[in-house]
Amino acid sequence: MQRPLILVTNDDGITAPGIRNLVEFMNEIGEVVVVAPNSPQSGKGHAITINSTLTFEEINLEGPQKDYSLSGTPVDCVKFALDKILTRKPDIVVSGINHGANSSINVIYSGTMSAAVEAGVEGLQAIGFSLLDFSWDADFKEAKTHIQDIVRKVLANPIPKGIVLNVNIPKLKSSEIKGIRVCKQAHAKWEESFDERINPHGKKYYWLTGYFNNMDTSENADEVALSEGYISIVPVKFDLTAYEYLDQLKGIME
Amino acid sequence: MQRPLILVTNDDGITAPGIRNLVEFMNEIGEVVVVAPNSPQSGKGHAITINSTLTFEEINLEGPQKDYSLSGTPVDCVKFALDKILTRKPDIVVSGINHGANSSINVIYSGTMSAAVEAGVEGLQAIGFSLLDFSWDADFKEAKTHIQDIVRKVLANPIPKGIVLNVNIPKLKSSEIKGIRVCKQAHAKWEESFDERINPHGKKYYWLTGYFNNMDTSENADEVALSEGYISIVPVKFDLTAYEYLDQLKGIME
Repeated sequence: MQRPLILVTNDDGITAPGIRNLVEFMNEIGEVVVVAPNSPQSGKGHAITINSTLTFEEINLEGPQKDYSLSGTPVDCVKFALDKILTRKPDIVVSGINHGANSSINVIYSGTMSAAVEAGVEGLQAIGFSLLDFSWDADFKEAKTHIQDIVRKVLANPIPKGIVLNVNIPKLKSSEIKGIRVCKQAHAKWEESFDERINPHGKKYYWLTGYFNNMDTSENADEVALSEGYISIVPVKFDLTAYEYLDQLKGIME
Repeated sequence: MQRPLILVTNDDGITAPGIRNLVEFMNEIGEVVVVAPNSPQSGKGHAITINSTLTFEEINLEGPQKDYSLSGTPVDCVKFALDKILTRKPDIVVSGINHGANSSINVIYSGTMSAAVEAGVEGLQAIGFSLLDFSWDADFKEAKTHIQDIVRKVLANPIPKGIVLNVNIPKLKSSEIKGIRVCKQAHAKWEESFDERINPHGKKYYWLTGYFNNMDTSENADEVALSEGYISIVPVKFDLTAYEYLDQLKGIME
């Protein structure tokens, strides 16, 4: 039997420890091809490159996988891999491991999750993985068995078309992780505050800063599950239609 | 009575004809403040600027509104306007008019719609407008009464929290537009094809190209409504949870 073909991408760039760990974990499950950005792409959301051009390089990194770096966004990587690099359809696309959370509303800003969504749009099985640790030297090894377990479960039980998975992992030792909780996206938002500075020429400039405000205490909200020591898995749709509001809106607009 | 405060933004840049027309239409409805990108931001999705800084300028353009150009993405514009420019909460945020369609799956790539979604995350009423004409000198005037009518209806009938509107307008004379149809996001995708070229130094580079493939013939799919001469309005949610799949996923993962 052919081993599953696994496409790996991310938004922190092809040399980030998060993706190198994910590649190592996936090499034990299938044949791995990596197509990932050649530079960090955090916060790029579902951006695509349409007003400039793309280049790619095959690079040699440790391990049996093939590695390609692309001068684009995470979504570009998925599109480019499918059109120009892979010779057959991947059995699954995994994105990450992101350095930092992509829980709740972060799903819409996240390059990691946008790559997974793009794979879903292409009709593929897809999962985004994020660890709740922003540091470059975060310990991804503690998540290894959990990540492998989730990928194997998805390969054995395909997710319906139109849905991809958003997996967030608490910053805990493997033995301290209490298990997996299937969750909804918590109702939360960033409270922005732009930090004003003056440049050497006297002109004001701004850094985007802020704090995360979770307003959701439901047991099955991803933020709550994570705070209680569980891995959260949110099934994410990319049909954004608010079906429950269609009839009322017809009454107002038509 | 205070006139409604209307924040206007877009993704084609503050001088694009689409936003200048929208500003003109909105000046007849309320007090208008424009905070828009200083350069084109098409295809930027829900990107935010976190690894570089932002600057803004007040600029003088024709009309009673105030205009501010920001060195960021559409989502940055909404965040920045709320934190640093507006002195009270806007009654509505309108984004566009985009030069080109943002119907069906384009909602996830669209800077125009991401600005509207960001306003929704902030708890505000929000609408993204797009005209099915990519040309810079598209005739936006034909859409004027329809756009004003939709904005007035939303101001009079607030949309529930968590939902924003994606409005697409066919390229037709006002008298040829058959009316408004409240729609779902059509099931459709881009079939990518990267156009390979060779640069003067002998290195390959690529342009993202492709064609749009609508697979949805439902009467209430936005693509169908538009092709039949209707304005489509899709209510868009940013809670992406696939609630209908939660129980089945629990059976697999927990």
